Amino acid sequence: MSLEALPLELPEVEQRAVMPAGFRAAARAAGIKASGGPDLGVLATAEAPASVAATFTTNLLRAAPVEQSRAYLWASDPEGRGHWGRAHAVLSTSGCANAATGDDGQLDQKVLAQALGAALGVAPELTLAISTGLIGTRLPVDRIRSALGPLIAGLSWSDEALAALAEQMMTTDSRPKWATVRIELPADDGTPRPVTVSGIAKGVGMIHPRMATMLSLLLTDAAVQPATLHGLLLQAVERTWNQLTVDSDTSTNDTVFLLASGAARAPVMPGSTEAEALGQAIRSVARSLARQQAADGEGATTLITCQVSGARDDRQARAVARAVVASNLVKAAVHGRDPNWGRIAAAAGNAQVDGRPIEPWPELRISLCGVDVFRGEPQPFDAAALSALMDAPEILIRLDLRDRDGTGEAFGCDLSEQYVLENSAYST
Amino acid sequence: MSLEALPLELPEVEQRAVMPAGFRAAARAAGIKASGGPDLGVLATAEAPASVAATFTTNLLRAAPVEQSRAYLWASDPEGRGHWGRAHAVLSTSGCANAATGDDGQLDQKVLAQALGAALGVAPELTLAISTGLIGTRLPVDRIRSALGPLIAGLSWSDEALAALAEQMMTTDSRPKWATVRIELPADDGTPRPVTVSGIAKGVGMIHPRMATMLSLLLTDAAVQPATLHGLLLQAVERTWNQLTVDSDTSTNDTVFLLASGAARAPVMPGSTEAEALGQAIRSVARSLARQQAADGEGATTLITCQVSGARDDRQARAVARAVVASNLVKAAVHGRDPNWGRIAAAAGNAQVDGRPIEPWPELRISLCGVDVFRGEPQPFDAAALSALMDAPEILIRLDLRDRDGTGEAFGCDLSEQYVLENSAYST
Repeated sequence: MSLEALPLELPEVEQRAVMPAGFRAAARAAGIKASGGPDLGVLATAEAPASVAATFTTNLLRAAPVEQSRAYLWASDPEGRGHWGRAHAVLSTSGCANAATGDDGQLDQKVLAQALGAALGVAPELTLAISTGLIGTRLPVDRIRSALGPLIAGLSWSDEALAALAEQMMTTDSRPKWATVRIELPADDGTPRPVTVSGIAKGVGMIHPRMATMLSLLLTDAAVQPATLHGLLLQAVERTWNQLTVDSDTSTNDTVFLLASGAARAPVMPGSTEAEALGQAIRSVARSLARQQAADGEGATTLITCQVSGARDDRQARAVARAVVASNLVKAAVHGRDPNWGRIAAAAGNAQVDGRPIEPWPELRISLCGVDVFRGEPQPFDAAALSALMDAPEILIRLDLRDRDGTGEAFGCDLSEQYVLENSAYST
Repeated sequence: MSLEALPLELPEVEQRAVMPAGFRAAARAAGIKASGGPDLGVLATAEAPASVAATFTTNLLRAAPVEQSRAYLWASDPEGRGHWGRAHAVLSTSGCANAATGDDGQLDQKVLAQALGAALGVAPELTLAISTGLIGTRLPVDRIRSALGPLIAGLSWSDEALAALAEQMMTTDSRPKWATVRIELPADDGTPRPVTVSGIAKGVGMIHPRMATMLSLLLTDAAVQPATLHGLLLQAVERTWNQLTVDSDTSTNDTVFLLASGAARAPVMPGSTEAEALGQAIRSVARSLARQQAADGEGATTLITCQVSGARDDRQARAVARAVVASNLVKAAVHGRDPNWGRIAAAAGNAQVDGRPIEPWPELRISLCGVDVFRGEPQPFDAAALSALMDAPEILIRLDLRDRDGTGEAFGCDLSEQYVLENSAYST
């Protein structure tokens, strides 16, 4: 019997962008990217500000949009200490990270918040910002300010507008990432109301979210208080983006905003069954986006999912899964369709987790694409046949530590010559 | 003024293998490697067993030679708990890691220890073992046993025999690694006695020593008790091998043995000035070997040294230096001779160290090949000229955190298409 994929009871995802009620968006080219592609986007609420929950990079060198968004969120709800609050809009720029730009870069970001606030008729402190691109270069502030007016005039409620925003965020991405889950939650009078959770995200290099995550916007029309929303977001991020790696490099700009407009008029109280249902929908969207990011990793040809069971607890399982998909040697072996499972075992043994067992796992089992390769000792297998199975857009590595009942998964991609080519000639 | 290289007051190293008094070695082909190259080696003492200090991998999946050496050392001096003790010989096999081979692999290793002990006329528990190569394959025990007799008969005191042992340890290495420091220490009667510290090591993939280190043998003819020797070894390892990375993958087989024969008749007491002088010689040899390993990293064209000053303490400086040389994006940029210093800043900000400051380093300075690129804000520089400077067999990245006075360094190499090519077709 081989190690089957872990069962996941998450709501089904549609891989498309669907605009939840209460939000508008627009995107266009403003001259930040040398390519002339769309590089400026705005997401805005209808009238009332949305509840916001946020996670930011743990990189010590935080980009200016990260510092500013955190400070503004903190001002909007001091209790959230920068992790939740309220906002009317998110400004999205791509092609320039506005990171390691010193005081000048912080001022640039502030000027843009003032321009956005003025155009929307709201306080600048009720806007947020995300940015992605080259570190150490300045934003072309004048060009962005000139482009803001027509952009705001074109804000639209359509699904296409959200899709355009996803495309605007792209840098080395080969395709936009989007995911939607639709559920029903009861209104105040108990009648079921349709609720949408939709998310967009960008990849695909400097991706190793840690206690934080990558650029993504998650939107829902459910009515949720900011602190409750933050709890739901953390649960999802811990199991999805914090389990994603492309190259083990954590970016200076990682940001996830989860915005709830409340327009669906389905109130969600903390600890309720509705909160649980909404939380599962959020996790399902986040998982889909993280997997889309891994599949589109720079130079990648194969999405690697590693699932671990039998761990001491879920936290250990996640750490082991992540260590496997982060290993350069495992990634290179997958690229070469080489069933070199010894590297999987070695990578698992390197997982960093508090209170590691003194004894390793004497009954460890490993399967690769459904083929058992190790069960406490090496198993005979047909290497050529397994290599052929590995030649697929997605492969599953399963480990059973046979200790207790912790489970977890992580997402990564193969390491190719193309990754090196792309990243040895990026800035010059 | 640019950021100069950190001053290092270490004794000068000769990059060659010199056999210290009291040791013999031999190496030959025994049919482990498919290439038919030398894959079996023995290091042995003259008569009395040597004092031994050891560090082993922290990978949870420890190879059979690691488990056995630790157990034997423990038996030879229970106080050392497997980290120091005494031994007559080290058996070195290459081409097969004897890792993830279950109980059978442990038995193989024991049979070889018995054969070696019998051939040398010593207890098997007074022998040690190191092994490197493919994980998950078995050692050809019968072939190795047949080769042991002629090998032991050919044991030699010559420098060439130690060089042959260094060559026997190679797997994907393109050249052997060796280093020697000669010092003088006083004999019992106060007259100066020449003392040699010599080391050999192998690289060059699955290299990310952590609280442990890679395959290396360090030899000295100084007279040192095992526990004292262990203290000297740890000080050296912390600043050298634990600051080396090729691909962030920690091997299952990492082992350093430091053996002292005492043949120079220069006794070294713990805490003495002699211990300090010997410790510096050991560190100097270890640093040279670690740098040779980085320079010969799989697919590498450039040795990257990162030196950090102005850190809260030395530990933080070492963590930051190591984060920079471990970053795939920094490694790829160096390969492309791309002065993309933003990646250096981002990698430094990712350093994992306890009690990280809440505020990042507002006055951070970065220089690349002696050119200042960041001083709290981006500095103007000639990108083409700096790119030309980076086209060298060795480059220096300097960071000054401008916090307190901690310093440290780390060693790595660039990430090339060749690394991916080598590692996507290793086992099959």
